[in-house]
Amino acid sequence: MAQTPHVVIVGGGFGGLNAAQALRRAPVRVTLIDRKNHHNFQPLLYQVASAALSPADIAVPIRAILRHNRNTVVVLSEVVGFDLDARKVRLDDGAELAFDYLIVAAGARHSYFGHDAWEPLAPGLKTLEDAVEIRRRILFAYELAEKRAAEGRPPAPLSFVVIGAGPTGVELAGALVEIARHTLSRDFRHIDPGTARVVLLEGGPRVLPAYPPDLSRSAEEQLRRLGVEVRLNAMVTVVEPGLVRAGEEEIPAAVTLWAAGVAASPLGRLLAPTDAGGRVPVEKDCSLPSHPNVFVIGDMASLHDAGGNLLPGVAPVAIQQGIAVAQNILGDLRGRPRRAFLYRDKGTLATIGRAAAVAQIGKLKFSGLPAWLVWVFVHLLWLIGFRNKLVVMIEWMWFYLSYQRGPRLITGDIDQWLGQRTPQDERRTASSL
Amino acid sequence: MAQTPHVVIVGGGFGGLNAAQALRRAPVRVTLIDRKNHHNFQPLLYQVASAALSPADIAVPIRAILRHNRNTVVVLSEVVGFDLDARKVRLDDGAELAFDYLIVAAGARHSYFGHDAWEPLAPGLKTLEDAVEIRRRILFAYELAEKRAAEGRPPAPLSFVVIGAGPTGVELAGALVEIARHTLSRDFRHIDPGTARVVLLEGGPRVLPAYPPDLSRSAEEQLRRLGVEVRLNAMVTVVEPGLVRAGEEEIPAAVTLWAAGVAASPLGRLLAPTDAGGRVPVEKDCSLPSHPNVFVIGDMASLHDAGGNLLPGVAPVAIQQGIAVAQNILGDLRGRPRRAFLYRDKGTLATIGRAAAVAQIGKLKFSGLPAWLVWVFVHLLWLIGFRNKLVVMIEWMWFYLSYQRGPRLITGDIDQWLGQRTPQDERRTASSL
Repeated sequence: MAQTPHVVIVGGGFGGLNAAQALRRAPVRVTLIDRKNHHNFQPLLYQVASAALSPADIAVPIRAILRHNRNTVVVLSEVVGFDLDARKVRLDDGAELAFDYLIVAAGARHSYFGHDAWEPLAPGLKTLEDAVEIRRRILFAYELAEKRAAEGRPPAPLSFVVIGAGPTGVELAGALVEIARHTLSRDFRHIDPGTARVVLLEGGPRVLPAYPPDLSRSAEEQLRRLGVEVRLNAMVTVVEPGLVRAGEEEIPAAVTLWAAGVAASPLGRLLAPTDAGGRVPVEKDCSLPSHPNVFVIGDMASLHDAGGNLLPGVAPVAIQQGIAVAQNILGDLRGRPRRAFLYRDKGTLATIGRAAAVAQIGKLKFSGLPAWLVWVFVHLLWLIGFRNKLVVMIEWMWFYLSYQRGPRLITGDIDQWLGQRTPQDERRTASSL
Repeated sequence: MAQTPHVVIVGGGFGGLNAAQALRRAPVRVTLIDRKNHHNFQPLLYQVASAALSPADIAVPIRAILRHNRNTVVVLSEVVGFDLDARKVRLDDGAELAFDYLIVAAGARHSYFGHDAWEPLAPGLKTLEDAVEIRRRILFAYELAEKRAAEGRPPAPLSFVVIGAGPTGVELAGALVEIARHTLSRDFRHIDPGTARVVLLEGGPRVLPAYPPDLSRSAEEQLRRLGVEVRLNAMVTVVEPGLVRAGEEEIPAAVTLWAAGVAASPLGRLLAPTDAGGRVPVEKDCSLPSHPNVFVIGDMASLHDAGGNLLPGVAPVAIQQGIAVAQNILGDLRGRPRRAFLYRDKGTLATIGRAAAVAQIGKLKFSGLPAWLVWVFVHLLWLIGFRNKLVVMIEWMWFYLSYQRGPRLITGDIDQWLGQRTPQDERRTASSL
């Protein structure tokens, strides 16, 4: 490498951004490629979906984050292929970018476990676009019920079904109850939003399956106290417009949301054979066995800790891996040996609603108001950008005092959802929402 | 009218909302119908288009604004027809709503003066969706130029053309210059946003044609000082992808924006014969000559003042007409005679950029910083909702101190804009942006 080595990073999520930041003063050129112009703070995405925050409150342009990294170029583009031996990345427009080091951190999307037809009926939550679409469906369900009643027709059922009780499912279910019982309580004349049902379906025996069992119990109790109908061991077999079937039970669903599973970016398959979740098995330093100059990190990587447990697809793993691979690249340039990645688990947090959360920090487990306050503090601290911290803090203060959710906007092509005449029509339309 | 009289309001803009508020304690039932769930504060829409504010900062759900009006029902629906003699409004789903009084306040859209093919090439600014689309085009033009340069291809020209120098055109041109010179100045490595051209085309002999001539001169001078290329008497004859022709001049255009004209809602034509601008000629009390129980107000109404001048399509006219027709309905119920509408002109404001504006209040005309401070104050005061006032104030403080625009998000289906290979392709793609 006679010239300055070129590090190409694919993805501007937690992993890619932290790698770029760790290389900021390194003697390398960095190119970060993302198909979005913004980094999206996924832990608060459910607050956009539930109309508590605006998209821009939790998203920052990637090039604004990296504006002071003089060695870094940000390119809005989509990677469509790799030639690892020739050390090239292929972009959507046919252009090729040569690299000396490659860091692939393209994250994950939701997975429907083979039921891809469910996707339009039960959207998942990974991007700002997903969040705005979910917000629209939730708000529109109430509008449609009021409209039908105002026209003298029987109101549409107000029933919301969330499939999957991981952190996202728990957060969404809690927010749906708050919208029904508080935010909208005085806004309608013909329908009573307080009568809305929120059903949380979990295929396993407890909510928050990846958490310690006593936190799962606490979370379930807090959900029930809020008014969420929690169904455990409820395997979903049918998702249709307006309807979800779990085991023997048929549940009407004005809106169905998917929080049941993720799969790594399909870019993984272009790098190496992947595991069942689409993850790429990597060496202890997150590199590919065949190509030590290629790293895969974050939700895309399959790496096990000393105890043999797969590292979870959470932000702290991606952040720490981004920094670790950057340090190994620097080590290479200085002739130092590679260091194995070691995950430092700082704890686990999940929020359920107002003053309702569960937390584990080290050996300490707690729930309710203290856990919620920790959650609020940690997320404000983590959020990228002073402006976003400030705006989110003010939105939260306003929201927690008034119960009002500011960004209650239904946007997009409204013509396609209005004008339904029959329940059959509505079913058809629901699927194209 | 044995029962409580039913007042149907079509449109939740300034006119419709103020009519509903003025009827809040009246012995009537009110139904307000809008095809959006939100009221959109149009005077600040250009700030959403230029990434200074988020859509939710300037929009409030209509039913949240009217939540305390116990006599009012809000229906998200589209009106598709009227039967004025039978006193019925027809909705998109075929349902009919009977009324005793009807207030039509459906506003205006942009007009392309017969060149409807220009609409996808040069979007106008009337809705939140328009604003987000314009924001996307502006930000994407810079991304595309950087991407091409990063791939070693000649960069795309950074040229922005605004057609029409009314208040919206002037505001957009000023914001485009600030984005180029300040907001993005350090964010790119291959291109220099500071070299971007902003061209403002006006068919008439001066900018802000509806304003007093000395304010037009001041506005033009302030625009030129900012760096806007102002072309007067420049009639646009061709709008093509990547290109605008005005007279003899051909101007390359990465983004073209339309601010040259509006036409009243097509609902007007379903009520009565309209004028050339689609406006419905109304009586002095804003009612239809044929149907005294039907009122048309705001941008849809053609009404002249004592001097024979058509009342302008601005928010104060709509607000005052909304209140006036509500008072005449109340007067009817109490057996009082109708009162003619009298417009109280409180002044005129237009902003150009940071500390740059023009104002006329009564006989007083001023410009620059004082006019800009009045503009800031008046718009914060007018904005509906305490939360919005607070958030906008904080966003503005942040923005004017840091020059950073928070909501710089490119959202939507990015796949359709990426992947262009040739300038020809780019031209095709530009038209579908």
